[in-house]
Amino acid sequence: MSGFDLEEYLRSEQTEVEAALGRAAAEFDEVLPSNQAAAGRHGVVSGGKRLRPILCATAFRACGGSAPSALLYDFAASIELIHAYSLIHDDLPSMDDAELRRGEPTTHRVHGVEAATLAGVALIPLATRRVLVAGDALGLDAETRSECGRLLSEAAGAAGMVGGQGLDLLGEGRELASEQLTELHRHKTGALLTAALEIGAVAARAEPHVRSALRGYGAHAGLAFQIADDVLDATATAEQLGKRPSDADLDKSTYVALHGLDGARALARAEAEAAVAALDRAGVDAPALVALADFIVTRRS
Amino acid sequence: MSGFDLEEYLRSEQTEVEAALGRAAAEFDEVLPSNQAAAGRHGVVSGGKRLRPILCATAFRACGGSAPSALLYDFAASIELIHAYSLIHDDLPSMDDAELRRGEPTTHRVHGVEAATLAGVALIPLATRRVLVAGDALGLDAETRSECGRLLSEAAGAAGMVGGQGLDLLGEGRELASEQLTELHRHKTGALLTAALEIGAVAARAEPHVRSALRGYGAHAGLAFQIADDVLDATATAEQLGKRPSDADLDKSTYVALHGLDGARALARAEAEAAVAALDRAGVDAPALVALADFIVTRRS
Repeated sequence: MSGFDLEEYLRSEQTEVEAALGRAAAEFDEVLPSNQAAAGRHGVVSGGKRLRPILCATAFRACGGSAPSALLYDFAASIELIHAYSLIHDDLPSMDDAELRRGEPTTHRVHGVEAATLAGVALIPLATRRVLVAGDALGLDAETRSECGRLLSEAAGAAGMVGGQGLDLLGEGRELASEQLTELHRHKTGALLTAALEIGAVAARAEPHVRSALRGYGAHAGLAFQIADDVLDATATAEQLGKRPSDADLDKSTYVALHGLDGARALARAEAEAAVAALDRAGVDAPALVALADFIVTRRS
Repeated sequence: MSGFDLEEYLRSEQTEVEAALGRAAAEFDEVLPSNQAAAGRHGVVSGGKRLRPILCATAFRACGGSAPSALLYDFAASIELIHAYSLIHDDLPSMDDAELRRGEPTTHRVHGVEAATLAGVALIPLATRRVLVAGDALGLDAETRSECGRLLSEAAGAAGMVGGQGLDLLGEGRELASEQLTELHRHKTGALLTAALEIGAVAARAEPHVRSALRGYGAHAGLAFQIADDVLDATATAEQLGKRPSDADLDKSTYVALHGLDGARALARAEAEAAVAALDRAGVDAPALVALADFIVTRRS
């Protein structure tokens, strides 16, 4: 790794993300009944690494974009709203029936299933609306805003995250082959993470080959992230994770089950390296993205 | 009414809508597990009046827009995808727990709760994506497409339809005052219907006062639609409606309960007239919209 201070970078960027998410959640206070607004806020401002908006903003800067942080994160935080929706819904009784998330009771445990379901769904159009409106405030031309809205909608939908949730449900109780598992995560985790990078590149009006490099980084980093998650689930304690390691309980296939701990670790590392290699080939010099790829596979939670 | 042949108009427009919805549903076949894709198709191509996309296309033409019907309805049908999502989710056991919709078993009864829930959610980003992409194919400039995407996201979200669902849940078992009931329906039915008209006007690059007139028409027509629904629920048989009249069962407030049958009928008629008056004041000459306002309050199902 270079001398890039990732810890400091993450801390300052996370502060910006939390502020932007707070502004987004405040929209619910104005229009939703209070319990549903509170459910939305619970799902949105409940901590987390905030990797997706940080990757988006970092890609934007790596592609030469420049903007005040608050404006940039109002835009980039849209991606986290989709992620927040997926966590709220994944935790629902009809899905994983999870009690804890990031060490705290899940949204439906605190605010009820109805409020959590509705607030979760409301986050999807909120995200698309905000990427268009915040893109305008960021000074993006209409063509660029519209393209970003399309990318986010695609990543959120059947060809992306929701499709991945579908494959995930279908895979419960069955043993998936390695390619099927990768296909699942390419949708469930990969699509939105890739969109984060690509939206950052598009917003900075990157050249096509640079945009493509960032998409490649996103695809590999997304897979690395998921494999590292499986390793953490298999090795960390519930306290370290802030949730119960649940995938094995639910009889879901994991990379660790398929490749063993060492095999999974090596795979994660290889994907992180492939992410960085995609940048190198396009001549993108981005120490922050290099450090983030490393972080994705070395993090402890 | 003028000599406008609404029956023939509805028939030909509905054919175009069904074709466009079939093309939209086909996207799910490519990417979702088969049961979830089938659930999406079930919710999308299950008949209905298709008022929202027809109002959108009709507004487009009333504002001087001109386009091949297939392209226009690929664009306008996006609005029906949001409506289809709301019907699938309203029928779920956790919401109204409905068995029948348009005379057929509801989506979750046929395809299961999980598939119906996921397919329903997937319709939201599909709708935003399609309004942006089909808007491009329709020849709309990026500024216009982006504005249409924003309007659709806003109407679908917490400030619109999902917010209305939230108020609806909250209102169960409580008696709402007339203003509260109107507030609920202004969100739950009105927001998307208004967006249908406004998106049609924006796509046709209508002058601000014309756009505003179509928004006014939409708001009044949306309320007229809901009041007429309450009247139908109170008077029609389940066979005529194709569903059980369920709102009274669920102890929800209705316009009929608040104003009596005759009072509700008069209210619906007044709203339909206000819709047409909004067009008249702006000098918009649109026999089809006048006929549609009448249809909204005189329909039998």
